[in-house]
Formats: sequence, C-alpha cells, structure tokens
Amino acid sequence: MISRTPTADLAKHVGEHVTIAGWVHRLRTLKSVAFLVVRDRSGLAQVVLTGPDTPRFTAETVVEVRGLVVAGDQAPGGAELVDPAIAVLAEPTGPPPFDLHRPRVTATLPTVLDHAAVALRHPTLRAPFEVNAASTAGFRAALDALGFTEIHTPKIVGTATESGATVFGVDYFGAPAFLAQSPQLFKQTMVGVFERVYEVGPVFRAEPHDTTRHLAQYTSLDAELGFVTDHRDVMAVLRHVVAGMVDAVAEHAAAAVTLLEAELPHVPAEIPAIDFAEAQELLARHTGEDPRGEPDLAPAHERWLSAWAERTHGSEFLFVTGYPLRKRPFYTHPDPLRPEASHSFDLLFRGLELVTGGQRLHRHADYLAALTARGEDLAAHRDHLDMSARGLPPHGGFAIGLERWTARLLGIDNVRRTALFPRDLHRLHP
Amino acid sequence: MISRTPTADLAKHVGEHVTIAGWVHRLRTLKSVAFLVVRDRSGLAQVVLTGPDTPRFTAETVVEVRGLVVAGDQAPGGAELVDPAIAVLAEPTGPPPFDLHRPRVTATLPTVLDHAAVALRHPTLRAPFEVNAASTAGFRAALDALGFTEIHTPKIVGTATESGATVFGVDYFGAPAFLAQSPQLFKQTMVGVFERVYEVGPVFRAEPHDTTRHLAQYTSLDAELGFVTDHRDVMAVLRHVVAGMVDAVAEHAAAAVTLLEAELPHVPAEIPAIDFAEAQELLARHTGEDPRGEPDLAPAHERWLSAWAERTHGSEFLFVTGYPLRKRPFYTHPDPLRPEASHSFDLLFRGLELVTGGQRLHRHADYLAALTARGEDLAAHRDHLDMSARGLPPHGGFAIGLERWTARLLGIDNVRRTALFPRDLHRLHP
Repeated sequence: MISRTPTADLAKHVGEHVTIAGWVHRLRTLKSVAFLVVRDRSGLAQVVLTGPDTPRFTAETVVEVRGLVVAGDQAPGGAELVDPAIAVLAEPTGPPPFDLHRPRVTATLPTVLDHAAVALRHPTLRAPFEVNAASTAGFRAALDALGFTEIHTPKIVGTATESGATVFGVDYFGAPAFLAQSPQLFKQTMVGVFERVYEVGPVFRAEPHDTTRHLAQYTSLDAELGFVTDHRDVMAVLRHVVAGMVDAVAEHAAAAVTLLEAELPHVPAEIPAIDFAEAQELLARHTGEDPRGEPDLAPAHERWLSAWAERTHGSEFLFVTGYPLRKRPFYTHPDPLRPEASHSFDLLFRGLELVTGGQRLHRHADYLAALTARGEDLAAHRDHLDMSARGLPPHGGFAIGLERWTARLLGIDNVRRTALFPRDLHRLHP
Repeated sequence: MISRTPTADLAKHVGEHVTIAGWVHRLRTLKSVAFLVVRDRSGLAQVVLTGPDTPRFTAETVVEVRGLVVAGDQAPGGAELVDPAIAVLAEPTGPPPFDLHRPRVTATLPTVLDHAAVALRHPTLRAPFEVNAASTAGFRAALDALGFTEIHTPKIVGTATESGATVFGVDYFGAPAFLAQSPQLFKQTMVGVFERVYEVGPVFRAEPHDTTRHLAQYTSLDAELGFVTDHRDVMAVLRHVVAGMVDAVAEHAAAAVTLLEAELPHVPAEIPAIDFAEAQELLARHTGEDPRGEPDLAPAHERWLSAWAERTHGSEFLFVTGYPLRKRPFYTHPDPLRPEASHSFDLLFRGLELVTGGQRLHRHADYLAALTARGEDLAAHRDHLDMSARGLPPHGGFAIGLERWTARLLGIDNVRRTALFPRDLHRLHP
C-alpha cells in the first residue's frame, strides 16, 4: 500500500514528516500563499503552499503529499502540512460538474445521477450509502443473533408468480424467463431446511411508476422463519431487527446522520399495532374522509396514522395488521377468526410504509384452495405447490426495502438518492 | 413462537415434560414399540411410541411433540421422549424421493435438484449452504476490519462491457439491457468514493458451458481498494480475506465440515506466488508438455502447479501472477517492466482457479489507449471512460466465486451442489 497517514490523524503527528494521499478537495489561492485541501476517506487535511509559483490542481486530482505537520488554528482538525512535496497520481479530465467542497449541493438530481462517479464523493451525497452499509450490517447481526442462516437465491426465475405485469423478461438461452420480484418462494422453501433464513439481495420491479419511491431494482432485506404461532411472532422479530438496524447506524454511521441533520428514531420495546378495520374507523372519525370499504390505505392515510401513533403512543413506528386478504398475495395466511382479513401487516415509519410481512399459508391444501379461489393457473405456481407439498411448519416473514429505509431515516425525498446508480424507467447509466 | 425445546438440548431436561417441534425424520415400527425421530435445525430427537396402534407418519410430516424426557443409551444425544402427545402441524403429500435419514444420498444430481425443496433437508446436502453462509460472513468481517464499505450495485446494465457473447439480454421497458457479469465498473467507481469497497451479490453469465464448474448465476464476493502500490497489495488483502473465511467456517460451520469429512486448509502467512512465465518453464521442464507461448494455463496445468506448491511450499494455495496482458480484461494494469505481462493474478486452491484479481488501470489516458489498442468501441465503454476521467487512485481488486470456493473447500465435485437452486443451460426450476 501507499504508506500514508489518514488525514483525520494529522494532529497526532505535529512535528513529524508524514505522507497523506487523497483527492484535491479544494485549492484556494491567495496572493502569496495557497491552501490545498486534500480529502481521503477519513476526512480533510490542509496543505500550505508558499512561494511565487504555486502549482494549479484541478479539483479531484489524486495526489500524494509529503510534508511537515504543524499545529494550525485555521486548519481543519487543528493541524496542517507545510513545506510539501506533491506527486500527482492521477488527473481528472476536468473539474466536477459542481464544487464538492461547498457544504450543500444545489445541482439537480439528474445532474447528480448523470455524474454519479464524481458527485457521490460529496460528503452529503455519500452519506446515505454509509447508512445503507451500516443498516445492512445491523439487519444481519440482529438475525444472526436469533439463529438465522444467510442464503443467496436465484434472480432468474422460470415463472412470474406474484404479478405478471411488473416483471422484466430475460432471454434465457432462448427460453423466456423473468427477473425475480422477490425471493419469496425461495425463502419459504428454505424455512423447510434451516427454519430461519434471511437474504440481502437485489429484487426487480418493472413498474412503470415514475415516483420518488419506486425503483426498477432495489435491495431487499428479506427474512422468513418457521414455527411461528401467527404473524405477531414475525412482528416481534421485525421489531428486534429494526432496533438492531438503528443501533448499527448509530454506531457505524453517526457522522453521516449528523451531517444530514437527521435524527434517529427510538424503537419502542413494543411497537404499537392497529388493526386495519380499526384504522379505517379512526380515519373516518377524524379525517373527514371515509375509507371504510377500501382494501388498502392511501398514502395520505398512512401519514395520518403515523402522526396519530406518534401523538398517542409516542412512536414513530406503527404496525397496521389484518389487511383484507384479497389485497395481499395468494400465500398470505387468513385470520382464522375473520377469514376476509389476513395475518399480514405493514410497518409504517414516519408516514410511509416501510416493511410488508405476515404469516404465510403452510399447508398444501390451503395453497391449492387459495390459488383456485383466485382463479390462478396452478401450473404457473408449481414451485410453490411443490414446496408446500413437502411439509412446511407455520411460518412468516417480511421484507424491508433498504433504499426506502435509509431515505426515511435520513429525511431524503427520493430513493434515487439512497440507491447506488439507481435504475428507473429512464435510467440505465452509469 | 411455538414454545419448544431444541432437540439438541433434550439431555439437559431429563425428568421434565418438554415440547419439541420439527419434521418426522424417520419412523421405525417394531412389534410393540415405534421410534419416531424428529429433526429440527439443532439436531435429532427420538420419541418412543408404545401401545397397539402406533400412529403412522409420512416422513417430513411437521409435528409438535410433548412428552417426558428420559435418559436413554440408544437414543441420539442420550435422551428420548416418552409418553408423547403428538400434534401434526402440516402433512406432506407423500414421502421424499429418497430417504432423508440414511447417512449418504445415492440419488442422482438431477433428482436432488428437481426435488430441492425437500432434498436440501438431508444433512449432507444442507451442509454446503452452512459453509456458504459462514464463508460469506468471514469475507465481510475480514474486510470490515480493514475499513471497507459494503455496497449494492445495479444488476441491470445498459452495455455489456466485458464480453458481449456471454451476457443475458433483458427487455428494459422496451429498451435493450443486460444482466451484469460483474460489479467491476461499479466497484472501481466506488473506490473514488469510499477507497475500499466490497459487494456480495449475484452475477450472471450466459455461458453455454455445461460443466461441473459453470453456473448461469453465481454469488460473487467482490472487493476493490485504492492507493495500492501494485497488485501485491491486493494479494495481501486477499490472503487476509481467505484466512478470515476459513476461520469463519471453522467457527460457525464445523459440523458441516466434519459431516462431509472435509479438511480445512491452513492459510500460510504468505501464500507462495509464481510468475506466469516461470510457471510455464516449470511445466515445460517437468510435465513433458511445453505450454510456453500459450496465453493461459490449462486446467491440468493448474492442477500440476497446485500440487507443486503443496510439495515444495507446503501450501494448498498458490498465486500465479503476471498473466499475459492480452488475455486479461481491458482494464488490467500492465507490468511497467514487461508491458506484455500484467499486474494480474489468479489464486489456485487445491488444483483449481478460485479467485481472479489484479491491479487496474487508473488513468484516463491509459483507458483510452487500452481500448483503442484492442479495437474496442469507445461509446460502449462510456461509463468506464467517465469513471476514469474523474481522478481515480491506483487501485485493484478481486472476485471470489462463492460456490466454487465452497465446492473446493468441501471436496464437492459440482458447483450445482453448492448453489441454492442452481441455474444452468437447462435449469430454471425450482
């Protein structure tokens, strides 16, 4: 490795000669002195250039700088490099489309995305991806502690089982195939093998929605577990996972949270839960609208319920349970006491649906009945049918969209800012 | 959760009434007694059924059993359940295609794969996936300790940059797109943001090879790091990672390794390395063949070199460095002292190439020159060109194929046994 001192450690080396290496973050040229700010992954360091012919560097030039560390009140971190010898490791062909050293980015989202290779170096644009990494680590650690096994499942599937309209087609050696919308089939199948499994991986939705919360590919944090009594066991695991994710962000990405002036939520020991029908009653009573009879919650109603939970329960999280069975996927377990309702749930966080989950059917006969009742083609569901024919325990699970999670956590308005090189209706590059 | 005692803990509860839950692993009916073996994720427990009309259970029936724990010499783990009350949670439609309770599986690979939903419950068929999970955790832990950041990158790409012949085409909202063969572009780009990144994710190869070591989708463990001196820095990180993976398997999947009668390798503090040209000299001198002039190593030669490394260096791992530049991807860094050779390497393990890596070009002018010299279409490489135009430090990385790794580690002859629901030329289900 290039032997170097992290810029963040400079103040520990006052009086020594050290080498730093990184990118030219900024060059400020005054009359007889110039200040070169070098950025590496640990932070920033100031290099003082004196003499009549201070060199010029394009922003984002990669440099290695050897010099003497001196204490300096004006310098970031309280120390700076003087008397430097500078080697250029690589030069950009031009400056970035906007200044990376300014505290805020005013460039439009298309400009940011078109120039992601350099735009993501801006601390505020990079920060969401530090939170993504910490959240994912927290998700895994929480489930590892509960005896879950990590799996990696196929992303190319032979049948589009959840909804034919929104899948991407793949030419599979001349045969038609599809990109998996979720690892649902596989994680349920693996409950039969490991009882408790999770997967972190890409899922694909060919949704023709050009909104701030839809992506053609996103990262799904999926978990599934067997031997549950009902959906409430799944909700308890999800609560543990969400708490683990928040803790991991606090531990590993605190600087990113601070930089974006976000506030991490408190995850209550028990997240409040409201039944779908009760939620509709509440909305009818308080909002001047009457959603009763609707099979799902409108976004505005999710926001209202979320605010209600915060007001009455002091919780930024709210479970809504018992959604109408007909609006949930075929593998959803009904509520035995109210067969038109389901053992499914959504987790709302700060006004938005963040997680969907529930108890699944586990008996083969129930799968046959559910598919038949919905008029589904049994052949198209042969893998689900085979799985359920093999003896599966009562089970359930959930899926968290990583990009939505981080956007909500950080107060970011568009999931394209929390997805690395997002894919949407119009975007395939970079 | 269904309140239950793990079967592995039964002996700790002698004299108590407990509930266990799991799958009917085996039912052995004698004249006046029957032995029901129940399997859960912790192990096996024997339940003793007496009386004239012992119930019949199909193998893989999901049961919940409450009974009294008694010490029993003949029972697995030294304890068994007597006087049981058995509740059936789910029934399979028939027995598995082969007995899961026999120590070895003699069913053919197609039978195993066609019936994966139940076949994977056999301890020897499940074991590789325990090793996959442990290896992946070890990969991440090793890199986390070195300050790497985890990323998740697009699997749908607008251009097929590495080799047009082996990509899967995707209909992307009516536009042509491809499944990513590797996260190469993205991980290099992210070196500009985080300096050190890794990704665990699926990669896709439409290779028309029907061999024991090719899959249409596999899990790639990718890493990339900046500010390297040359490829040897990358090799040092890879050595650290491989050691971390072996340690993690030893810690978290020891039972799987023992069950498959495999032996974990010792990872030397420094893995021996041989230059490609020297390797060819050695082969010419000792094998009666003369591979000099060939641009790559034949599989038989990899096996010979691997055996040679074990004989002379006592190492099951061997780096081969300095492969001819023309056979490596366009972004490969040449050896400045021998421009026809490259700063690339392969890591051989037990006779097989397991990892490919190297130092990459980092200067924009070098990318332009390399692409032009190869007669490549610059427009097709616009994302790589834009990335390199932004100021990238000297960098390099590697990719480990998870399924090959586990197959080699466990002495498994076909990567279809280490991939969950493998995808190949002929297989899209389950």
